[in-house]
Parts: sequence; C-alpha cells; structure tokens
Amino acid sequence: MEDETLLMLPGPVPMPERVRSAMARQAINHRGAEFGNAYADIVRVLKGLFGTKNNPLVISGSGTSGMEAAVSNFGKGRKMAHLINGKFGERMYTIGQRYASEALPIESEWGTPLNLEKLTSALEDGVEVVTMVHNETSAGILNPGEEVGKICRKHDALFIMDGVTSIGGDVFKADDWFVDVAIVGSQKCLAAPAGLAAVSVSDRAWDRVVKNPPYYLDLPAYKKNAAKDPMETPYTPAVPIFLALREACLIIEEEGIENRISRHHKMAKAVRSAVAAWGVDMFPKTDAIHQYSNTVTAACIPANSNDKDFRGSVKKFGIQIAGGQDHLKDKIFRIGHMGAVSAPELLATIAATEYTIRKTGHKVTDSGVMAAAEVLG
Amino acid sequence: MEDETLLMLPGPVPMPERVRSAMARQAINHRGAEFGNAYADIVRVLKGLFGTKNNPLVISGSGTSGMEAAVSNFGKGRKMAHLINGKFGERMYTIGQRYASEALPIESEWGTPLNLEKLTSALEDGVEVVTMVHNETSAGILNPGEEVGKICRKHDALFIMDGVTSIGGDVFKADDWFVDVAIVGSQKCLAAPAGLAAVSVSDRAWDRVVKNPPYYLDLPAYKKNAAKDPMETPYTPAVPIFLALREACLIIEEEGIENRISRHHKMAKAVRSAVAAWGVDMFPKTDAIHQYSNTVTAACIPANSNDKDFRGSVKKFGIQIAGGQDHLKDKIFRIGHMGAVSAPELLATIAATEYTIRKTGHKVTDSGVMAAAEVLG
Repeated sequence: MEDETLLMLPGPVPMPERVRSAMARQAINHRGAEFGNAYADIVRVLKGLFGTKNNPLVISGSGTSGMEAAVSNFGKGRKMAHLINGKFGERMYTIGQRYASEALPIESEWGTPLNLEKLTSALEDGVEVVTMVHNETSAGILNPGEEVGKICRKHDALFIMDGVTSIGGDVFKADDWFVDVAIVGSQKCLAAPAGLAAVSVSDRAWDRVVKNPPYYLDLPAYKKNAAKDPMETPYTPAVPIFLALREACLIIEEEGIENRISRHHKMAKAVRSAVAAWGVDMFPKTDAIHQYSNTVTAACIPANSNDKDFRGSVKKFGIQIAGGQDHLKDKIFRIGHMGAVSAPELLATIAATEYTIRKTGHKVTDSGVMAAAEVLG
Repeated sequence: MEDETLLMLPGPVPMPERVRSAMARQAINHRGAEFGNAYADIVRVLKGLFGTKNNPLVISGSGTSGMEAAVSNFGKGRKMAHLINGKFGERMYTIGQRYASEALPIESEWGTPLNLEKLTSALEDGVEVVTMVHNETSAGILNPGEEVGKICRKHDALFIMDGVTSIGGDVFKADDWFVDVAIVGSQKCLAAPAGLAAVSVSDRAWDRVVKNPPYYLDLPAYKKNAAKDPMETPYTPAVPIFLALREACLIIEEEGIENRISRHHKMAKAVRSAVAAWGVDMFPKTDAIHQYSNTVTAACIPANSNDKDFRGSVKKFGIQIAGGQDHLKDKIFRIGHMGAVSAPELLATIAATEYTIRKTGHKVTDSGVMAAAEVLG
C-alpha cells in the first residue's frame, strides 16, 4: 500500500490491523483487572509457543533486555560459555562479559555449524552456564536446541537459549529440550510491535538465581508480581504494547500453534525453492536442510551487485528486505518470512527479488517465482 | 465515558486521541528516516522541557529504567548519597546500593523537607554523586532542585535528579540548576503512553561516565546511535510508543511550555483550594506553598474512612484517584493533575471527592467545588 513499505525483514514485521488497533485504547490502570487479564492471555499462549509449563515473564524492553535479564540473573559471577555463529551469538558473549566470572566464546564462522566438541570440553572444564541463539538471523542458520540442551543437562549446566526469532514461528520445546531460560521478542514471529521481551525460567534455574542483577531486569521481582491477582509487573509496563501482544497472541491461538509453524516451514521452503531456481547460493555453509532458518532466508548477492543497489532495486517495489550485517554487508541479502505474512507478501517479495537478480546480469536457472508458487499453492 | 475510567493518578494519565491514534501505524523500519524524524521531534521538545542544551536520550523502558541508567552509568563504584522523603527517593537508594561503592541514605520522614545539612556533611565527607527526586508523588512534595544543584556543584559532585513526574508539568531547568543527569517518564506530565524514559546528561557527567553499566542501559551506546542521521537507538525501540510520544510532544509544542506549566500550576491551586475549603489536611508537612507538588496533591483521608471505602466511593463516578503507598495506605489520598487534563476532569474529580468526604461524616467548611471553580474560571 502507499505509505506502507512492506517489511520483509527478520523483524520488525507487518502487524495485523487487529493488533495495531488494540493500542488505541485509552490509558488504563496497570494494576487492575483489565491489564492483568491481558498479561494472563499473553502468558497462556506463550507457554504453548515456548513449550513449557512455566509462565513466561514479560519485560518492557527489546529482545536484548530479555537476553540481559537471562545472563545477569543466572550467569552473574559464574563461568559461562557462549556458542557463536552470528551477530546475536556475539551479543550474548558481549553481555556475558559484563557478568560472568569468566566468559568463554566458542566461535564458528558466521553461518557455519556450532562447535559442540569444544562445548563439551568447556563443560568438562567447569562451565556452569551456556548461551546459544536458536535461530541466528544474521546468518540464516538454525542451531540445534535439543542437542545442545542434552549436552548441557548431562554436565548439569544451565542452558540459556535465545528464541527471539524462532519462538512463535518454529518448533521450540523448552521443557523437552532442557532449556532452562528461553527468550522471545514481541516484534518477530509473534507479529506484535517491538517493545516487549518474554523470558521463561525452569525450576532448576530459579534454584540457582543470583542476587543483585540490574534492578530493572530483576526476574524474581517479575515473578513475584506476576503471581499477584490480577497479574502485575514490578515497574510500569508499556501498556499499549501489552494490549497489542495480547491481540497477537489471540490471533496465534485462533490459527493454532501447529498450523502456524507449518505455515512458516512452508514459507521457508518456498523461498529456498526460489533461491535454488535462481541458481544463487544459500549463505549458511551447510547442506543439512534442518539447519536452515525457517523464519529468515540468507542468500548470496550475485557477484556484480552490492547491498545498496540490490536492496535499492527491491525497495523500488515498496518492499524492504534485509542486507548483511557487519562483515556480511554487500555479501548477502536476507528475506524475513515470519509473523503474520503469507503467500501474497512472499510472492511479491520473490518477484521483486528475482527482477533484481536478473538485472545484476546473473543468469537465473529457472523462475523462482514459479518455484515458490509451486510450494505455496 | 463508558468503558473509560478517568485516571486522575500521578501517572498513567489520560491520553489525547491524537496520541493514541499515532500508535496504529503499520510497522516501520526503526533504522530509517520516519523513525529518526520522530525521535528528533521528541528530542527537540524535551530539550525545552528539561531546560537543557543537551539532547535527551530515549530508552524503551519505564521511568525506573531511566533511574537505573542514571545511577549505573554515573554512580557505579562511587560514593553516592540519596536524598529520601518518599517512595521514589527510596527506590533511588535501592538502585544505588546495587552500584555505589558506598550508598548513603539521607532520610527525612515522607512528605517532610529534605535534610540539606546532612547532605552538605556527606559531600564534605567525599560523596561523589547525589540523587534526588524532584517531585515526590508518593508524598505530594516538590523538592528544591535549584538549591540542591548549587550545593552539589559547590562540592563538585554529580547531581542526578529524577524529573519523572515534574518535567513537562512544572518548571525544570537542568542547565541553570546544575542538574547533571535528569530523567523523565513518558506516561506522566507528557501525557503519552507508558513505556519510554528519557535521560539528559551534562558534558561534565559524560566526562565521568563509568565503564560496563548494564548492557541494555549503556548510555554511551544510546548517545552514539542518537548521533546518527537518521537518529537511531542501540536496540530495537518500542516504535509505537515513540510515535505516540512524538505526537504528545507536538501537542506540547502547540500549547507552549510556559502555558503548559501555568496550566499545571492553576490546576494544583484549584485542588489545594478545594482541600482548604473542605477543611481537610494537606499531607506534606510544610506550610511553604512552593513545596507542594504542582502535578499531584496528597491530602489526608478523614478519620472515619479508609483507602478502600474512600477511593471506592470516588470510583463509583468512574474516576480513579490514587491512595497512599506502603505505610501511607489508608492515611492519604492523592489526586493527579498532570498531562493533558484540564478543568472538566478536575471539576468532576473534585465533585466526586467532595461527595465522598461529606459521606465520611467530615463536616466540610465550604464547597471545594466552588473554590476550585473560582481558580479555574
């Protein structure tokens, strides 16, 4: 639509009209029933998406505030290991360095599989807390939550998994996978506005919670206030974003969690089929299909082009896709397919991208649009 | 209106329709011009309200996140003194205890003037950073920003002043008063939704900024990103709240800062006139009119009533006023008069409160409604 660039990014993502309208509500008392009921609706739906029996706690802050809440409440003064194969893995490590007694980076090249042998040695050397980014959007790679969870539990370490861009769009089983602390952001697969992070915590993590994390991110205070009736937050919450997230959660409930995940898998398959038809390289250095992200696809910009020209050409159609971050700038482009988008947005995006690829001089093998349509139809 | 309780609280406050509608915008790229322009509009207006040449930085979090940003970035590892005469002064001290090498509480009874002699001794004993809450809503008292600023500067200490519930509704002159770090919250006098805090920092405070505050509250990162063109935030911002705050700031600009402050002073005078007419005691233990808050009035609940009955009676009229917090519960009631409200909301609130006071059996001296009307007319 005019005046509405279609955001096909790994967040923020387009929001359904119901979600946006929910924010127009007049100011309400955030210590009353109306707010408490909204918080309760959010928790009910998020539990299903996190795959946990525990009630996620909602922080008024970005996904990063959720990451820091996890690291500071459970890693402070402890030996931590940080699995890294992209930008958000690096961010976890940066945060870990502010809190851990020792923060150990376990790095792989961006977009390549994690080094789990090194993780095992680190755990044998006494690492107490491990962080991993489940869906690393910077590289379009999905990391093995279940496998890492098992390794951590075997060594009795706490496992913090960033599900910021997977929860709500891909399979996530916090309890079954032994994830002790999981985090999601509101503006990704949940298709709500930016501004909230939710954090779930296992019983064994609560048993090991530290003292004196940042005051604003003090998870025991969030837990205590969420246990009230009506539910509350310790500090004044971003009420309109809560109301919007509640509406987004109700939409998710109506769609059904399994349907929603299937839709994301199908969208991912459609984009990957287009990339294959174009004869363009996927960015993640893996052939294992289950290691490709299902919420964002990262592929290589053809040799004759660059980030500005490539995304600029797509933008002419009123569609914004993402480029590469940091050293991947000019090397890759990324198409987000998370949240409420479906076939119309994807077909338009793939068409605009295909037009752009052809303009670079790259000889496409086949029609990416038709390949995607074959999957989506 | 039906389904809209009128919130006459010391925040959150009713929002103009323009502010609420601004949030219905479709998701936008928070690293693009539309967002950057909104941030720039906010900064332009806030500078005037803060009374500073420095650009306030906006954090996606509650006022408490702004308080912690101030204390952690400038007080960490230092000797701090915390002036306390109410709940938020206590909160500053609680936060200070997490960061200061030594956190010294300088306590007065809630609602009584601060102990500035003790502050002077503390500064002579080497205190490096002082915190004060300008407008202490828990007690309805306004603390002397200018006077404390001078004392701090004389001893070369940094002065952090919480302006969460005064900036935008009362006179605040950060630069003239030697306030090094000032904080405001979005849902108070600015009449925007809850969810943002803004922090201004003097040059001399930047010269003394510490290393490694909480990652999410790292003010140098906010400064660096705000200097970009278009303006940015280090982590994904709560975009709809930014758009709403921008609209609230444009409304403030249209009203004019001096007009806005005069309006708040007039509202405060009207409520105080009503309280006097009722023959009810003001809560703050002072006769100095300039020590009464101009954005919230705290008065004593008549002897025969209690918090639940008193506020319950007012609530029957669809109006919510505040009670006392902590040990002041059942002792005081508080009427907020901040933000976008004006004569209609005040007259209704005073009428409902007067009805309630009469019902307790308290013999009012005179009509509070007419006394208020005399001021507002």
